[in-house]
Formats: sequence, structure tokens, C-alpha cells
Amino acid sequence: MDDPFQISDSHENGLSRRAHWAGGETIATVLMAKTVENPEIISLAAGFVDNETLPRDVVRQAMDVLLSDPERARAALQYGTTSGHLPFRRTLLDRLLQADAVGEGPETPTVEQVLITAGSNQLLYLACDTLIDPGDIVLCGSPAYFVYLGTLRNVGARIIGIETDEHGLMPEALEARLASLERGGELDRVKLIYVTSYFDNPTGTTLPAERRAALVRIAKQWSRRRKIYVIDDVAYRNLRYYGDDVPSMLAFDEEHDTVIVADTFSKSFSPGLRIGWGVLPRELLGPVLSQKGNIDFGSPNFNQHLMNIVIEEGLFDAHLETLRESYRKKLDETLEAAERFLGPLEGVDWVAPRGGLYLWLRLPEHIDTSLSGSLFSQAAENGVLYVPGDCCYPDEGPGVCRNRLRLSYGIQSCESIHRGVEILAHAIRKVSR
Amino acid sequence: MDDPFQISDSHENGLSRRAHWAGGETIATVLMAKTVENPEIISLAAGFVDNETLPRDVVRQAMDVLLSDPERARAALQYGTTSGHLPFRRTLLDRLLQADAVGEGPETPTVEQVLITAGSNQLLYLACDTLIDPGDIVLCGSPAYFVYLGTLRNVGARIIGIETDEHGLMPEALEARLASLERGGELDRVKLIYVTSYFDNPTGTTLPAERRAALVRIAKQWSRRRKIYVIDDVAYRNLRYYGDDVPSMLAFDEEHDTVIVADTFSKSFSPGLRIGWGVLPRELLGPVLSQKGNIDFGSPNFNQHLMNIVIEEGLFDAHLETLRESYRKKLDETLEAAERFLGPLEGVDWVAPRGGLYLWLRLPEHIDTSLSGSLFSQAAENGVLYVPGDCCYPDEGPGVCRNRLRLSYGIQSCESIHRGVEILAHAIRKVSR
Repeated sequence: MDDPFQISDSHENGLSRRAHWAGGETIATVLMAKTVENPEIISLAAGFVDNETLPRDVVRQAMDVLLSDPERARAALQYGTTSGHLPFRRTLLDRLLQADAVGEGPETPTVEQVLITAGSNQLLYLACDTLIDPGDIVLCGSPAYFVYLGTLRNVGARIIGIETDEHGLMPEALEARLASLERGGELDRVKLIYVTSYFDNPTGTTLPAERRAALVRIAKQWSRRRKIYVIDDVAYRNLRYYGDDVPSMLAFDEEHDTVIVADTFSKSFSPGLRIGWGVLPRELLGPVLSQKGNIDFGSPNFNQHLMNIVIEEGLFDAHLETLRESYRKKLDETLEAAERFLGPLEGVDWVAPRGGLYLWLRLPEHIDTSLSGSLFSQAAENGVLYVPGDCCYPDEGPGVCRNRLRLSYGIQSCESIHRGVEILAHAIRKVSR
Repeated sequence: MDDPFQISDSHENGLSRRAHWAGGETIATVLMAKTVENPEIISLAAGFVDNETLPRDVVRQAMDVLLSDPERARAALQYGTTSGHLPFRRTLLDRLLQADAVGEGPETPTVEQVLITAGSNQLLYLACDTLIDPGDIVLCGSPAYFVYLGTLRNVGARIIGIETDEHGLMPEALEARLASLERGGELDRVKLIYVTSYFDNPTGTTLPAERRAALVRIAKQWSRRRKIYVIDDVAYRNLRYYGDDVPSMLAFDEEHDTVIVADTFSKSFSPGLRIGWGVLPRELLGPVLSQKGNIDFGSPNFNQHLMNIVIEEGLFDAHLETLRESYRKKLDETLEAAERFLGPLEGVDWVAPRGGLYLWLRLPEHIDTSLSGSLFSQAAENGVLYVPGDCCYPDEGPGVCRNRLRLSYGIQSCESIHRGVEILAHAIRKVSR
């Protein structure tokens, strides 16, 4: 964007400013084209989920419960509310509060604060649509979830990256940035801090409890004339293969007025049902619901009834076990292949994730992983795709690292993962010469 | 909105301008509250569909086809594309071109131009989000679909109403308005003409073929420096109970570069599945898909696979027959009750619709049908709800008529319709004294 405050009179094709900011060809389009050119290619790029573990039998069982009861079936086929199916929202909230060990209190979120959305992405969209005017500031990790960077650019946000390490976003760096924004008279433009706090996309890191507490504390402390919200994107929380769960940021927000939790069943159950959900601070509820009403009038009622049955019947937790087992093997395979093929290469390293779907690689400084660099085409020609790291960096902040890349191991078989990493290692060797 | 060009620094609560424009308590909220207060109330307000005819058995049959094939089931449970399931889009396009008698030609819309959305509302939202900057102009009937008026206000549109009669929006009034906008130097701000061309919400009118042709011609003629698009909202096309079908506006757009068709299965099949779809002019495709990607990453793949089976197996057309028969009876009942109870009242009249879900009443000038008027509370106290006409008027144009109201006969039984209209007539008598 050139000047966010400029009105569109000069747009020749008559599109809105938002449409312009939505940008042109995305990385997804390029990756798709490569796959079409060579259907045999091993895509370690797409964040799709494992096809084999998609819950056909579970859906069948739940569907039977739903459709054999005429009244229940009709209720599911009728309009729902914009917030979503009440019993479903209650189920979700209860589970979250339990997982986070949040007890009953006057500030404890209630079911009114729970909203069903089209995946977690829609909640992320609604949050920025409700809070961001062109030029307003969002702070996030450097790097961060690249799809959301696109959405934020689309509403005209100014996105500033904050330094990260192997434990995710660094609180002291966040504080330093807020201080510098304050000195520059820009603190009032800061609206949001965005974090994918479990098995981050793309870095795979998980924020430890103390950092979660620190981020929430910082957001509250720096909410001076203007409130700063924290989005905790917990999309991968259920995909933990090693170690113990950590509470979401909600647990560290005692007043429950700062943290927005965004969750989804796309990764943990089925992306085809497009069910996400979240918990909102009370004061955002009205505005977010208005926006949601305009966008889609509420998410499909039918899918919510179905998913609620899946959970109520204990089918979801059982499915999660199967899923984790399958992904754990794939993560193991990814790390073994990395150790074997990438380990010997100088300047190549990574932090082993304990869950999620991604491995974030650092290559030697001189290797450019971007779409226009030699590695990407070398790898694609030899039959493997990855997500170039440069697309995961915010527009401002510590700067773009062009020697990083993201591997996804969700959809590929262990054999393909093994082979894909081998091809990648070969391509790295080749462009290193 | 005060000044659409003003930047938000002064918003005390930190919400975006869009969130502010989304407005406060909606008519829906008030109606909902009344229903909660008195569950026995006969709501002739809600645009819900008939509960009795919701297609449980049809969904069951189609679900069986979908879930008994493991590969098909998994494909449905996986991510889809942002545009939607390709075979489904092909089915929909074929049916539309056939219904509109549009033959093969170089400009004939292709399946790439078909997009699946969350009801037709989302396509309406995407169109304005892609085209409208704050202060841009949308022209529509006076009155028009009030939910879309809210959505348009939400993106900062300036909405100008055009005179309507018993055949819908009047082309000569549209042309006069465009001429006056041109004289005022504002023609370049006109982006959209919005029409619900079949059994309009709220007026029940259907645009005759010659008006459709005229509207498309006018849009093209006045697209000078800036393109003016026409949205043809065909949500009620399938709900025709009398007379012959008319082609959609697409049939009159020979270059297929002007008309956006927005359709839905919410009224004709099930709102709980939230499936809408539309056809876009080629040049809007990229930008609209970008926005759709940001909002929800594509509509639920599972629901699209299901609905495609429903159509392919001939279940949809069979269901439509049942539905039309049921609604035809309700329309007949509504008109009979109106004739009987409202007919004798001086200054009360209406145009009998031939399909859809709404009857639009004109009352004597001195009766204020608005939420704050005496009729609404009188009717509600006696047990009937309607949609006040004043909320259906754009911000500019021929002006708000406060003596109109909309009755919906979709969800109520014939008995309740009869009783509801009787109560309404009684309330009108009472406030007339």
C-alpha cells in the first residue's frame, strides 16, 4: 500500500482499497501451479491434514445420531444464530476452561462470549476487521503465520514483527518495541498482538507459561489511551505429540478483557467441515457479531450440531488419540530424515518441534529460499515443494530472513517425507556449490 | 456515519470505522427479544423457512451416498478450494445457463466464474467489500432488502433508493438518478446497482423481462470512467407458485461483464447448510476470491459435496415440488386472510405476490408501523410480529414510508397465518381510532 489514508478516486478499475491491498498472486497459487505441472511432486508445502486419518466413520456415527431424530435433524437444517449453536458453545467453553484450569469467578468467560466461526481464520479476520483501521498497528512474531499477514495487509494494517527465539515471541523485545512506538507517538495505533502459541506456524515453537503471562501483562500495561488485545491462535494445541500441555493465554488474563482465543477443528478433526470457534472479551462481542452477521449470518448450523454430537459421544477425544499417533510417527520420520540428510550439511539447523505440522529450517546465509531463488526451482525440478521463509515475515521489524523454509509433514506418507527431505538435501547441496 | 474520510484516531473505544458503521441494536434483536418475552407470539416477521418441509430424508439419502464411499467421504472432509467444489460449481452453472436459455458463446460464463459462498448474503458482502470504498454509491430499490442495507452501511457505502412500483425498480427513475449524479459530478462514485429480482424482499414484486434488459443496458451505458455492476439477487427464484419463470439478468448481459448473480439454497433447501453461490464477471474473480480467502478460506467442502449429490440424484428438484406446494398453500392462506381481515380496512392495500415468502402491506398514511409507533406495540401485545417497513428504506432517495410493513408466511402454519393476520387487522383498527 502506498498511502493508507488516501481515498480511492484514482483507482482505475474501480475496486475498493481493500481489494487492492489483498494483493496479487499468492504463494498458494504458485505452489498449486507447480503441483498441477507435476502431480508426482512431493509437497512439503501445503498445510493440509493427513487424508488417511480423516474421520469418515466418526462422522457416519454422529450423522446417524443426528439424522435419526427428526426434530434434532430439522433443528440442524434450520437457520441458527450468528453466535452459533448454544449447546455446542457450552461444550467448547467447558472443555477450554477445564484444559486451562480456569475456575469459576465473576470474570470467567461465559457462553455468550463464545462464537462459532469458519475455521479459526475467520475469527482472526473478524478481530482485525473490528479493530483495525488503515494504518493501525499489529505486533506479531518475526516470522508469523503468513496467511494472517495477508489478511492484515488486506485491512490496511501496519504489521511489525517482534524478535523470536526457540521459545517463540520474546517479551523483552515486545516491550522494547512498545516503548519505541510510544516515543514516536504511535502507541495509540497499536491494536493487536498476534501469537500462534502452540507449535507455531511456521516455526513450530510453543510459548512457555511464563512468556504467556508476560505477554498478557505487557498488553495490559501498555493499554494506555487505547486497549491492546492479544490473539492467542491455538489451532495446533491438540496436536501435541510429546510433553505436557500448557494453558492458553486466557488463563493468564485474570480480568478476561484482553485475550481473544481462536481455535479450530480443521487440524484436529476435519477441515471440510470448516468449524472454528473462539472466546472474545465481553466488550468486543457486539461489534464482532455485527461483522459476522454481515459476512455470513452465522456458520452452518448443521455442521455445529454434528460436531457437538461428535464431542458429546466421546468420538472426538478418541479420534484425537488416533490422529496424534499418526502425526507423531510423521514428525519422528521428519526429524530422522532431517538428521540423516540435512544434519551433515554445514549451516543447516532447526529446532525439533513437539507437536503441530511444521518444521522450520535455517539454511546457510548465502542460500536464497525464495520463489525467485535457485533452491526453490532446483527442489521443484527434483520433485519437492516447500514454503519459502521470506513470505512469513512482517513488513517491519527485525527484517526478512531469506535463508529459511517451512516443511509440512501432515499430508505425506512417511516414505514420501523421507524421500522429500532427501531430495531437498540434494538440492541444497547443489545450490551450495 | 459522520465523515467517511475521517481516520479513526478519535474513536475512544478503539474499534475500527467499519465496526462503528455496523451500527447498534438491529431490528432482528428487537424481534428476538419479543419472541423470548412471549413464546406464543405469532411471528410474521422472521424470514425463516418452513420447519415441516426441511429435507431430513433427502439429506439422509444423500449422506448415505457420500459416506458409504470412503474416498468420496474423505475428499469431502478435506480442505476444498476457495472457489468451491468443482463438480458442484459445474452442476450449478449448467442449471443456471439452461434456466436462462443462455447458449454457448465466447462470452458465456465458465465454471471458473462460479463461486460457492455462505448463503447469497456472503456473495453480496464480497461484492461490496471488493468494490466499495467509504462514500461510494450503491443504487437499489426504495424499499430494499434491509439486511443488505446494513451490510452496505457497514462498508461505508452511500445508499440511494430508486422509485419502485408493482413491477419493481423503475428503469426511468434509475436513469434520472444517474443523470442527476452525473450533473453533480458524482457518477464516478456509483459502483453497484442492487436488485432482488424475483419475489423481492420486502415487496414481493418480480422484475419483468423488459425491465431486466433495461437495467442491464442502463448500467452499461452509464459505465463511463467507472464500471457499474448489477447484482441480481435471485434468492427466491425457485419459490415461484404461480406463473412462468423469467430469465435472470445474466441472460440480458451479452458481454457477461456487468451482472453478478447471487443465489442460495437457504430458502429452497436448507438454511442450516449455509450454501449459496454466484456467477461473477471475469474481472471481479481475482479480487473477490482474495477477499473470500481472507474471510473463510472457502465454504465448507463437506456441505458442497453433499448438496451436489442431492442435485445429481434428482432429490433437489423433487424436494422443490414439495416445497412449492407447501408454500403455495401458505401464500393462498395469507392472501385469503388479508382479503378477509385487511380488505375491509380503509387505506390498506397490497400487491399479491406470485412466489417468495413476503407480503408487503401499505397502511393509511397516519399509521406509523415503526418500532416506536403504536401499531407495533399494539400488535405485539396482541400476539403478532411484523417487520416495520421503515427499516427497508435506503438513506437517500424518494424517502422513508412509515406506513408500510412486511409479513412473512414461511414458518407459520396456515392456522397461525390466519390468526396472525386477524390480530394485525384488529390492531390496525385499534390504532386507527
